[in-house]
Amino acid sequence: MAKRVRRPRRKVHGEWSPEQMNSTKPKAVGPGFVGGQYKPLTDREMERIHHTVLDVMENLGFAQAIPSMVELVTAAGGWMDDKGRLHYPRGLVEEVIDKAPKHFIMPGWDSKHDLEIGGQRVHTGTGGAAPEFIDFETGKYRASYTTDLYDIARLCDTLDNIHYFWRTNVCRDAPNMRDNDINTVYASIAGTTKHVGASLVIGDYVYDVVEMLDYLMGGEGSFRKKPVLSISCCHVVPPLRFAEESCDALEAAARTGMCITLLSAPQAGATSPAALAGTIVQSMCETLAGLIFVHLIDKNARANLGTWPFVSDLRTGAMCAGAPELGLIVAGCSQMAGYYGLPNSCAAGMTDSKVPDEQAGMERGNTLTLAATAGADLIMESAGMHASLMATNLESFVINNDNLGNISRSVRGIEVNDDTLSYDVMERVIHGAGHFLGSDQTIERMETDFYYGPMTDRQPPSTWEQVGEKTIQDRARERVRQTLSQHYPSHISDAQDAEIRKRYNIVMPRENMKPSRRWK
Amino acid sequence: MAKRVRRPRRKVHGEWSPEQMNSTKPKAVGPGFVGGQYKPLTDREMERIHHTVLDVMENLGFAQAIPSMVELVTAAGGWMDDKGRLHYPRGLVEEVIDKAPKHFIMPGWDSKHDLEIGGQRVHTGTGGAAPEFIDFETGKYRASYTTDLYDIARLCDTLDNIHYFWRTNVCRDAPNMRDNDINTVYASIAGTTKHVGASLVIGDYVYDVVEMLDYLMGGEGSFRKKPVLSISCCHVVPPLRFAEESCDALEAAARTGMCITLLSAPQAGATSPAALAGTIVQSMCETLAGLIFVHLIDKNARANLGTWPFVSDLRTGAMCAGAPELGLIVAGCSQMAGYYGLPNSCAAGMTDSKVPDEQAGMERGNTLTLAATAGADLIMESAGMHASLMATNLESFVINNDNLGNISRSVRGIEVNDDTLSYDVMERVIHGAGHFLGSDQTIERMETDFYYGPMTDRQPPSTWEQVGEKTIQDRARERVRQTLSQHYPSHISDAQDAEIRKRYNIVMPRENMKPSRRWK
Repeated sequence: MAKRVRRPRRKVHGEWSPEQMNSTKPKAVGPGFVGGQYKPLTDREMERIHHTVLDVMENLGFAQAIPSMVELVTAAGGWMDDKGRLHYPRGLVEEVIDKAPKHFIMPGWDSKHDLEIGGQRVHTGTGGAAPEFIDFETGKYRASYTTDLYDIARLCDTLDNIHYFWRTNVCRDAPNMRDNDINTVYASIAGTTKHVGASLVIGDYVYDVVEMLDYLMGGEGSFRKKPVLSISCCHVVPPLRFAEESCDALEAAARTGMCITLLSAPQAGATSPAALAGTIVQSMCETLAGLIFVHLIDKNARANLGTWPFVSDLRTGAMCAGAPELGLIVAGCSQMAGYYGLPNSCAAGMTDSKVPDEQAGMERGNTLTLAATAGADLIMESAGMHASLMATNLESFVINNDNLGNISRSVRGIEVNDDTLSYDVMERVIHGAGHFLGSDQTIERMETDFYYGPMTDRQPPSTWEQVGEKTIQDRARERVRQTLSQHYPSHISDAQDAEIRKRYNIVMPRENMKPSRRWK
Repeated sequence: MAKRVRRPRRKVHGEWSPEQMNSTKPKAVGPGFVGGQYKPLTDREMERIHHTVLDVMENLGFAQAIPSMVELVTAAGGWMDDKGRLHYPRGLVEEVIDKAPKHFIMPGWDSKHDLEIGGQRVHTGTGGAAPEFIDFETGKYRASYTTDLYDIARLCDTLDNIHYFWRTNVCRDAPNMRDNDINTVYASIAGTTKHVGASLVIGDYVYDVVEMLDYLMGGEGSFRKKPVLSISCCHVVPPLRFAEESCDALEAAARTGMCITLLSAPQAGATSPAALAGTIVQSMCETLAGLIFVHLIDKNARANLGTWPFVSDLRTGAMCAGAPELGLIVAGCSQMAGYYGLPNSCAAGMTDSKVPDEQAGMERGNTLTLAATAGADLIMESAGMHASLMATNLESFVINNDNLGNISRSVRGIEVNDDTLSYDVMERVIHGAGHFLGSDQTIERMETDFYYGPMTDRQPPSTWEQVGEKTIQDRARERVRQTLSQHYPSHISDAQDAEIRKRYNIVMPRENMKPSRRWK
């Protein structure tokens, strides 16, 4: 076996991201700073993982491939064994790794929200399929509905460090699977002009949704030119087995030009090995198998490796989302994706806590820092998720937006040059004022180098007591109420909405999409 | 100028720490795992910082050196300029970097708590000089007293991921500086058998404290053999100016064999440059200047570079402790210390929040992950601190102990070998059970690879509702009350205590050191 060594590309820490370069004044934080400073794996360890990936794909293969996949992969050199498993020759895997697109745009409805993906430029956003929602008024867990999803979308539309909006909740008021997919996309697209992601469960619904978006965006072919929607496609049921309907959806997504997250979400210790390295191997295999399928359909597909492994609490078997082992696994996967030069996504910044307490913050802060500094291109589920992904909470999106600012600042890192090394400033200060408070450097760097989270409290205790001893949750509640009573995006017109309601079973009343009826 | 390139030593991620090797069964987390996987600076950037450090020390020098320091440094090649600044030739700086001890023990009163320092082995513990305390019964901020410090010490004595106890609070019931130092050390030593740290403000108090410890440990010379106490010595008043009394204390500490933290705590934008790289340069200079002094007194001094820079909120000038920029700076300093091969300490895991809310958790999780994975040997203030170091809170020590477990697990990283790569396990599972739940690997790795924080909630929402909808703070309160009503360490006898009270002005009543009087 020929040993191939890939050298990670040179990273420029502190470099402005393309998104930042386009803004008139760079800010301390933003989308697209280059990660990869954190390397949980040595070069040698990455090579060992890579060679095990090739062994697994070639020798163990995958069960339950759909016919179109078998046809494409066998035509490219793969083979089926007598147990019905599809095998991938290592040459094919290497070729797709080398040839699949490394850089692409994931467009927002509003182009100011376009995401420039590739090169381990870190973006953070939402995600999930939470069946429950913490009711804003009662604080109790209850089923989530389409209007909740719409409210979350328009809340996230106003939160700077949430760079895209992946659907967060299941619309449990939708009467069937198709209506769930249609309503999910419509409520999300109506709530935000950021890039949107959703899961679409079969190929037909993919075509339905593209038809809806074509209509909203100006006619047939509009969506292909500007694919404002991603599919999160769970094309595998781990370990190493395809999900037939989702593969069908994946094929449809590739054929319509939709952006694609190739999602492998095993649970270490349950549906993937308890050993962290083994779960990384398996998740890389599963996402690469999806990428090969997509690549054989469309060489220009805008796909990312959706390395989203979770961890089991091995005392109970329950999935846990805030564990440090999860942070390590997704960081390892992100480093592997960077080694391949391929964009990836992962889930981090979640919590097992039921409430926005200190546990929630600690778990989010730890796993997000690991994933982001390892260079994950897209970090999903990074805001608002509670109870091991079972539920979302409005205040938490607002709270976590500050956390994501801290994370972006962390990824941006330390700028080292003659100015920042500060020899001259120190020389002036020790022979002058004796402090740096009024120095030009301090004033210049105040806005560009330091992040000030809008919900973050830095008051002295006495002031904090005077203004009511508020927690970050208290402050976030005020922001939620203010935003949701005022911010109703209007990029979809009344006429368009009426037409959509004629064509599809839209379960959210139109009145919920207008001010004055709710959130007074 | 000769260019010297230091190669970071090879790290073995996932390797057991010496402390772990001594235990009968290794656990998922513990003291002394090797950090350094996170490298915020490139090799070239470290070289540039190093050369700027040499330039600053040689050309700008330090103000207000004490006579004994001037004598030692000038004898070693340094010089005083006409403005009274002490300058360090680069050869001297390089020599001390190379010759100062790289590995040493910081002993605990109980040897099971000995810390094996060096090689970027990460240890986490407390620290601080908080003047206030959040009253356990009222939840209100108030002055902190000696009994609070003692209670915190014995609480931390029971928390596994707090590896040492640095004093956290000022004893505001001590009538003067000397009594504050004596009472701080006595309350801390009486409350825990872990290694203890404190600030001692002048040389005389250092000798007083050593005399006290010699008595408690069995007679004159006992402390030098087993220096269970560290001094946190703020030998500089940044920028680049010595603190005369603290240098006197530092000299005394070096002469008595005390463990030493050479503390440089500038505030970026106020007492050091706003540019993060400049603050790293200055903090390295200030700690190295301390190390040179100590090294010229005792070649075997157990000293660490106390690179503890803070960040200013430049809108108000206030110190902030939870900022992501702080995480970056201390990570950069830790990487520089690793580049020199010298042990360092830093402060991370603090919060600006007044309460244990989600802000507190996010700030702690972010800055701790950065500092720890960068390989800080000792992370101080990593539990219990609130309000930008103004106050401590009992529940927070218990809450943060879980966070520190997550951090230790993160530092330990991903083990890559034939077993963990899991090819064989996957092969068996896909042709057998179809899942990994009952596999030997899963069962074997349950305790050694996964950390289960005792305060961390991973219940399903319904169970969580049934048991009272508790936050982590609620659970921690129960643990605080239980521990403090029961755990009274007894390594100091009644007779010793009576003798100490004869010799010194001990302000905490003896009855507070016994069960049944408080915390019923």
